[in-house]
Parts: sequence; structure tokens; C-alpha cells
Amino acid sequence: MATIIEAEEIAGWEKYYRINILNKISGFRTACLIGTSNSAKNTNLAMFNSVTHIGSNPFFMGFILRPTTVERHTYNNIKETNYFTINHVNSSIYKQAHQTSAKYAESSSEFKKCHLTETYIDNFKAPFVKESVIKVGLSFAEEQLIRSNQTRLIIGKVEKLIIPDNSINANGDLRLDMHDSVIVNGLDTYYKAYFLEQLEFARP
Amino acid sequence: MATIIEAEEIAGWEKYYRINILNKISGFRTACLIGTSNSAKNTNLAMFNSVTHIGSNPFFMGFILRPTTVERHTYNNIKETNYFTINHVNSSIYKQAHQTSAKYAESSSEFKKCHLTETYIDNFKAPFVKESVIKVGLSFAEEQLIRSNQTRLIIGKVEKLIIPDNSINANGDLRLDMHDSVIVNGLDTYYKAYFLEQLEFARP
Repeated sequence: MATIIEAEEIAGWEKYYRINILNKISGFRTACLIGTSNSAKNTNLAMFNSVTHIGSNPFFMGFILRPTTVERHTYNNIKETNYFTINHVNSSIYKQAHQTSAKYAESSSEFKKCHLTETYIDNFKAPFVKESVIKVGLSFAEEQLIRSNQTRLIIGKVEKLIIPDNSINANGDLRLDMHDSVIVNGLDTYYKAYFLEQLEFARP
Repeated sequence: MATIIEAEEIAGWEKYYRINILNKISGFRTACLIGTSNSAKNTNLAMFNSVTHIGSNPFFMGFILRPTTVERHTYNNIKETNYFTINHVNSSIYKQAHQTSAKYAESSSEFKKCHLTETYIDNFKAPFVKESVIKVGLSFAEEQLIRSNQTRLIIGKVEKLIIPDNSINANGDLRLDMHDSVIVNGLDTYYKAYFLEQLEFARP
């Protein structure tokens, strides 16, 4: 049987209980590390669970940034340098990736603190995560301030994809589960993907 | 070894090949059906792979809507009635859910065409999917037109949650995998979640 919960009841929940449950109900998504640096080359690495496809021509991706009422190194760095990277988390690094969510000072890079390796590709101006199998390099395209709660949608134009050799198969398809991308639900629970089925393009 | 692909090369890819690969690289997410009706009570049901958590106080969720250069029944209905529902897809209904992506006329409801049952809860003004185990009822909060490509971020305020009895466990946690929520990658490939680990809140 089902329980019906009204907005007024949710509003009365204890803060961390509420954040936990609501983030989980919002669904599964690929765990991604966003890499940036400031103009003094101090690097930053942060876990995001809101990376979303925005468009394919050109290829845009976006993510939700919480209100800038506290310092947001990722946001500041993107605005300062114009570049960032999105790196899929895999099962060998999800514990280190999770650890990037701890509050470190701007001067201590999460790459070092969390034992992940920063790597630069073709002079791209933001650091990639060497251990990630699927990496995306983006330039800042636009931001939308969400009036309802002062979060922001940050959108980047994809400049560079780094994927394993031969990962696009003969059907022109990429099987993300075969490249070990890890799923996060909410802020703390990690999953792997278990293949069910690939369906045909739907027609009436 | 890795292959590096530049934006210029992606721009030259054949359209459907490009859309397929880029949607897949954008990651896994919970497959969701969005239910709406117009003021004449014609219902609509559509699959979305971009549902995102926007905030927890109040609880806001959002999704990306493609450009309104063709008719978007979901968008029109939300603007007309102010309400919509987000229904998690599960493994018993993912084939019917996928079929909602076929182009049906506004007068034929995807509920009927795709053998899913519309249900109304407490006079909420948008239809829920009876077969979904996790259901969310929302009122329209705001939209953001993305200048880069004319897609829209549509944001709703959660008014009502319908979850299974006892699905919030003694730790104040909800295990989405135990409620059979299905994952989609790109537009056509379905997965289930296989639990890895729940990690502690990260501290430096």
C-alpha cells in the first residue's frame, strides 16, 4: 500500500532527513566529478549528482549549483577561467570521489587530498581526472539563476570528449555500463548499472 | 587507450548517431513519466530522462524540455493547468513507458495507447500513473529559457509524494533500488540499479 505525504508535512521534517529523502526520490544519476582551476592554477574537484544533457547540436551539458551564499569554488573557477571538465566516476574511485564533498580550503586541492590524479589534455585549460574512463571538456556557455530558490543551472559547451578506444560499437552505440560508470542516488548511495534491454525507436 | 574527439568532429556526425552517443555520454538517470492534462481533460503522458533535484526547502524538481518549435503537449498542458506529475518507471512498465515517446495526436492519450492506467489522487489536477510505485505531484513554479539552444528548464514545486508504506527505513533512508525504479541511458537503453555501498558524510 502507499503513503501520501503532503508538502506541509515535508516542510516539517528535520533538515538532513528531508535533504536525504528528497534527493533520493529525485532519482538515480551518473556520479560526476567536476574539475576546475582558478587563475593561480589552484585546482578544485567536486562531486555533482545533477549533470544533465542539454542539447546535441552543439553538444551542451549542464548541472545544478547550490546557492552562492557560501563560497563555491567550482562556480568561481568557471567564471574566472571559462573552462571545466566533467569526469564520470567509476567503481575504482567512487570512495575518493565521494570524499571530494568534504569542505576543504581553496588552497588545498581535492585532487591531492582525495588521491585522484589531475591531468591536462592538449593544453585544455581545466584539469581532467586521470582515473576517469569517460571525460568531457567544456567551455562555459551560460548560467540561469533559478528565482524559486537561488540555485543556478550552469551550462557548458562540450569542446572535447575523451572515451575509451572502440567504445562506440558497430551499431553506433556506447554501452555506458561496460565502461564502469557509477550511479549515485542522493548524496551518499552508490550503485552500478545492470543491463535490462535496448528498445527500438517508438512509433505509434 | 583513449580516443580524443573534438567538438568539430562531433558536429560532423550524422544527426541520429550524434544524438544517440551524446545522450548516452550524458549519463544514467531514473526513467520518469510526466503526466498532464489539458483543460478539456485530454491527458498526456511522456517519457523524460532529465528529471533533476532542484532544491529541498521547498522541494523543487525540474526537467529539460526540448525547443517548442514543434507542439509539446506536456509543456502546453502545464502552462494551461499549472500541474503535472512525475512517475518513476519500474521494470513491469518500462516497455509501455518507452512507447509513450511515439508521436501521438493530442486527442489520443498515451495512457490508453500505451496501456498505462491514469489515476487521480485527492483531486490533484494532473493524472498519476497507477502502475508507478513512486509518484510525485507538482505545481508549476517557473521556467528558464536556455539562450544557447532554446531548450527550457521547467521547475515544479512538489505538492504531494506517493511512496510505498514503510519505504523510509529506520535510518531515515529510502533505498530506490528496492522499489524497482528503472534507469535509462540515452533514449533507448534501460538498466536496473545494483547496490554498491552507502558512504558516510565526508569530512576533511
